[in-house]
Amino acid sequence: MQQTVETVSADQFKRAFRNHPAGVAVVSASVDGDRAALTVSSLSSLSAEPPLLVFSVSDMSSSTPVVLAAKTVVVHMLDANCAWLAKLGAERGADRFSDANRWAIFPEGEPFFVDAPVVIRARVVDHVRAGSSTLCIVEAIEIVDRDAAESDSGRPLVYHNRTWHELGPGSTLTC
Amino acid sequence: MQQTVETVSADQFKRAFRNHPAGVAVVSASVDGDRAALTVSSLSSLSAEPPLLVFSVSDMSSSTPVVLAAKTVVVHMLDANCAWLAKLGAERGADRFSDANRWAIFPEGEPFFVDAPVVIRARVVDHVRAGSSTLCIVEAIEIVDRDAAESDSGRPLVYHNRTWHELGPGSTLTC
Repeated sequence: MQQTVETVSADQFKRAFRNHPAGVAVVSASVDGDRAALTVSSLSSLSAEPPLLVFSVSDMSSSTPVVLAAKTVVVHMLDANCAWLAKLGAERGADRFSDANRWAIFPEGEPFFVDAPVVIRARVVDHVRAGSSTLCIVEAIEIVDRDAAESDSGRPLVYHNRTWHELGPGSTLTC
Repeated sequence: MQQTVETVSADQFKRAFRNHPAGVAVVSASVDGDRAALTVSSLSSLSAEPPLLVFSVSDMSSSTPVVLAAKTVVVHMLDANCAWLAKLGAERGADRFSDANRWAIFPEGEPFFVDAPVVIRARVVDHVRAGSSTLCIVEAIEIVDRDAAESDSGRPLVYHNRTWHELGPGSTLTC
């Protein structure tokens, strides 16, 4: 039995996308002393040469104006040990920078969270408006990759149907 | 111990993104009788009103020219039961349409794979070039959502570090 919808409503669209799992990242930026950070589930790579990545930010997030005003941003890829950071960046009204032990500042001025296993400093290349969101295309200019040097890296964090998951040996498909 | 890279090489960039898990989709299209389908790990929603989604296609894929020439495309969200389809759409040179039992054609002409739990027919709204890829922004015009009607839906399929994973009760984070 199938449910076919000729005119797609917002609810139907949201329901379909709840099925679609995604990796989790936090994007931070600073403009004129205003710091912002938000959780995104839209990060993907676009091109290795040049090293381009893309994510989208919603008009609904209070962090979006700072991210869109910034010339550089920091993209944090999160593992399951950083689920707290994913939740913090998704919590409406929460101060993302209240715990000074959790973040630092790049020499160039961008705030970043020190616990993230992969931190990418990136230059904004293009913005593309689409509906109630803006796609941000950015070029990696510096990568701090703790996973490249450590063997005890955390398990990948996945967001699906409003729940957090982690990948591990038990999740591997054997087919 | 951290590995900091001031100039980001293609290998370093690829390594960082191998850490980043993603949901899996197959995009199909047909132009002047040429059919194409390819697996993407870049699908995300952009906006519910209007219902916009985005994915990227690489210049490296032989299916890309057809997808970029099409005015409408079909986006299939895949579960673990469709890992075979994810592999088929990612296999260089494979005929995606060799098994006539696996696909059908919308009245409007687009080919689609009948086993996918969620199938979205969509109108191409915008293309954005970025490095060696093209972002495709599309608007959903029809959703066939089998998961909305069935209780025995498959487990979500995730791609990570060149391995397929499925989400389930064992992958849920309890923190």
